[in-house]
Amino acid sequence: MTAAPTSSTDAAFLADFHHVASIGATDNNGVDRQALTPEDKATRDWMRDWAARNGFDLRIDAIGNMFACLQLVPESSDTTGTPTAPYVLIGSHLDSQPLGGRFDGAYGVIAALFAALRVKESLAESGQVPEFNLAVVNWFNEEGGRFAPSIMGSSVYAGLFDLEEMLAVEDLEGTSVAEALKTIGYAGTDTPPEAISYAEIHIEQGRILEREATDIGVVEASWYTQKLDIDVLGEQSHTGATAMADRHDALVAASKVVLAVAEVVNDFEDEALVSSVGQHVVEPNSPIVVPRRVHMVADLRSSDPAIVTAARDRLRSQIAEIARDHDITIDVADFDLRDKRHFPETGVELAEKSAANEGLSIRRLETMAGHDSVAMNHRVPAVMMFVPSVDGVSHCEREFTTDEDMVRGLRVLTNVATELVGGELGEDRNGEVWVGRSVAEVLVGSPAIAEGATVSASNARVDP
Amino acid sequence: MTAAPTSSTDAAFLADFHHVASIGATDNNGVDRQALTPEDKATRDWMRDWAARNGFDLRIDAIGNMFACLQLVPESSDTTGTPTAPYVLIGSHLDSQPLGGRFDGAYGVIAALFAALRVKESLAESGQVPEFNLAVVNWFNEEGGRFAPSIMGSSVYAGLFDLEEMLAVEDLEGTSVAEALKTIGYAGTDTPPEAISYAEIHIEQGRILEREATDIGVVEASWYTQKLDIDVLGEQSHTGATAMADRHDALVAASKVVLAVAEVVNDFEDEALVSSVGQHVVEPNSPIVVPRRVHMVADLRSSDPAIVTAARDRLRSQIAEIARDHDITIDVADFDLRDKRHFPETGVELAEKSAANEGLSIRRLETMAGHDSVAMNHRVPAVMMFVPSVDGVSHCEREFTTDEDMVRGLRVLTNVATELVGGELGEDRNGEVWVGRSVAEVLVGSPAIAEGATVSASNARVDP
Repeated sequence: MTAAPTSSTDAAFLADFHHVASIGATDNNGVDRQALTPEDKATRDWMRDWAARNGFDLRIDAIGNMFACLQLVPESSDTTGTPTAPYVLIGSHLDSQPLGGRFDGAYGVIAALFAALRVKESLAESGQVPEFNLAVVNWFNEEGGRFAPSIMGSSVYAGLFDLEEMLAVEDLEGTSVAEALKTIGYAGTDTPPEAISYAEIHIEQGRILEREATDIGVVEASWYTQKLDIDVLGEQSHTGATAMADRHDALVAASKVVLAVAEVVNDFEDEALVSSVGQHVVEPNSPIVVPRRVHMVADLRSSDPAIVTAARDRLRSQIAEIARDHDITIDVADFDLRDKRHFPETGVELAEKSAANEGLSIRRLETMAGHDSVAMNHRVPAVMMFVPSVDGVSHCEREFTTDEDMVRGLRVLTNVATELVGGELGEDRNGEVWVGRSVAEVLVGSPAIAEGATVSASNARVDP
Repeated sequence: MTAAPTSSTDAAFLADFHHVASIGATDNNGVDRQALTPEDKATRDWMRDWAARNGFDLRIDAIGNMFACLQLVPESSDTTGTPTAPYVLIGSHLDSQPLGGRFDGAYGVIAALFAALRVKESLAESGQVPEFNLAVVNWFNEEGGRFAPSIMGSSVYAGLFDLEEMLAVEDLEGTSVAEALKTIGYAGTDTPPEAISYAEIHIEQGRILEREATDIGVVEASWYTQKLDIDVLGEQSHTGATAMADRHDALVAASKVVLAVAEVVNDFEDEALVSSVGQHVVEPNSPIVVPRRVHMVADLRSSDPAIVTAARDRLRSQIAEIARDHDITIDVADFDLRDKRHFPETGVELAEKSAANEGLSIRRLETMAGHDSVAMNHRVPAVMMFVPSVDGVSHCEREFTTDEDMVRGLRVLTNVATELVGGELGEDRNGEVWVGRSVAEVLVGSPAIAEGATVSASNARVDP
């Protein structure tokens, strides 16, 4: 043994959290650690070393998910007929948005490492043998900034995305996921641990907890979301020499589309719908050429699926009108539909009980953002918890959560993990896959990956 | 001698023109030969080989301009006291826009090569000794699609841009002009030939000649143009988790700016002003992140400088209002101001006489587009001529000019070159630099190159 085991104290947790925040740190207290960049590799190496120092067994699967495993159940005590007990998974993701915040994802992974260490220490102390094993996971590419779609690693694990299709996804430079994984040495060959349940803690990325001075949020359901792939096809011409009347300027039409997407929320109650265009690429992008093409992605989200559908229909008709007015072509395709999905009530109640045990306040919420837990909730019962975000800002450098709130979240997660390895939410373990309460499971890849992919319920794993 | 000299027949000219159009050819009959790419190198190599085969002496200067020189005046017959007679320069540029047309620029260089060959052959036949030498020039980076600003090589030659500053300009990948010149082997060390006058033929890129069924256009003046560097600075946040009311979406504000730029032309008479946004880059450009920044370039052009100024003032006040409404910062900077500039009347008349000699119709025009001739007209008397463009379209793959029109232009250019080497427009040769009829000469670089560069009349060379 060359290194002493890391202590599982709160101070050790905070020290490690702030150390990881220095990897890929930006000038304004954020981080830039997009999936499979050298910064992502450095964070992964940190987790690998931490796991080794603390007696975890590391496995890396084919899509680059990292699992730091603790076998808590001796093989001989396994009574199910399978060679070993399944795993409770806890974790989140270490990748970030470009110029992203240092809490989003990383907090959940590092809290999970310390929660797992505490569970291990408590069991060692008590001598108890739990029902299930425990593993901490760093999911590959939750953010999707470099490789679309987002929530990629957990969706492959959950059977929602096809492994080979995802390995073939390319970034804007033409580098594939498979190549990038090899480059940084994380193209794994291990069989991932078999999950029995999943728990994740994350920053809220909204301001409800802060506004109500509540310590912990527990997620009852994820919002209904969909994206629109919008391709505006005009005609390239000389900005100086072409008469205004002769132009078919893709950017002018595209700007009207961007405003239509922003303004469609006004047709509904305040904040019942959020909409945006985040990706928007102009071609040929030369100062003296009238743009021939703008390719953009619009994002629509609501708790109520009917609101998203109504907004999407209204936008499609407005976009058709813009195309007519400008005598150009605008192709619109639906993709990345993610149905509203409920988290299991028993998991929500478990979080509530765990917060109460720690003397903390807790409330139920819905999540507008996608998370690895949303994908995992398709495969096993999942518990998703939030800690407060100052000002509710996220995906930016000034994202902030206090040390105190992070430590509170760690305590609740430790409590939840203890209950889960003890058997909670394990009722479906006899080979049955968890079936959530969603009516239609629709989760498809980006058109960038599978052109013309059909939106189909069969893409989602709702049956074993 | 290994290769036979190329014939100067029309058929040989057309064969060479269509051969060059195959270099960097695109699927839809265009070309993609941005400055200093492998395709630009291939076109340059073609010119180098052609010049060698036809007895031209090739010089390459420090900014990568190529001069194929013919010394027509023996050194002994030079009576001015200088070591040799100066050069009439004729030419244009071989680089193209991304997915550009095959006529823009390339036609002018190839026509100039054949015009020079014909002048040489005629002089050899007649035994006459002209007043000046003759060189064909391929100006570096007229298009400015990869390296801004445009019209770079001729502006450096004319003393309007600083050589070192231009060598340091980087493309979007961070490659400098100096590096890219070295990579393709065109970082020259030759002293360029000293010009006494300049002539260029180009496609019109408009539809006046086609509409009026006129063979040739001669340019009386270039339009007044300016660009605006517009930087929209919002705040990055999560597209799903951030409430609409909490966003500072740079793309929504930027879209209003794009529409303001497009609509400002409605304040003036039809086609008195043209405006556009050609370059427009969104950051971080991730589908699930509210954009923090849009950096764009707007282009304003008019025959009447007062119209550009009025449009610019109106836009600045509208942009300030958009920034206030969205509670974000929008920085606006003027750059690349190019004053309205008249071409010398004697040059216009020379073109008219040359067209008449060939039995062709000709009319006077203004040019909305920038050209190498506009930069050269700051240094020496310049003659700029156009041939018709089908449908007036340019900077796109469907740009088209008939073989017949190209051959007509070649004949007029040959005529003009013959007159120029014979002494026309050579009245200023006693060390005096040509001073055009512009009141204020303002031609400055892009803010991307020289941040905060002051717009100043002293940047332009109006005095030796």
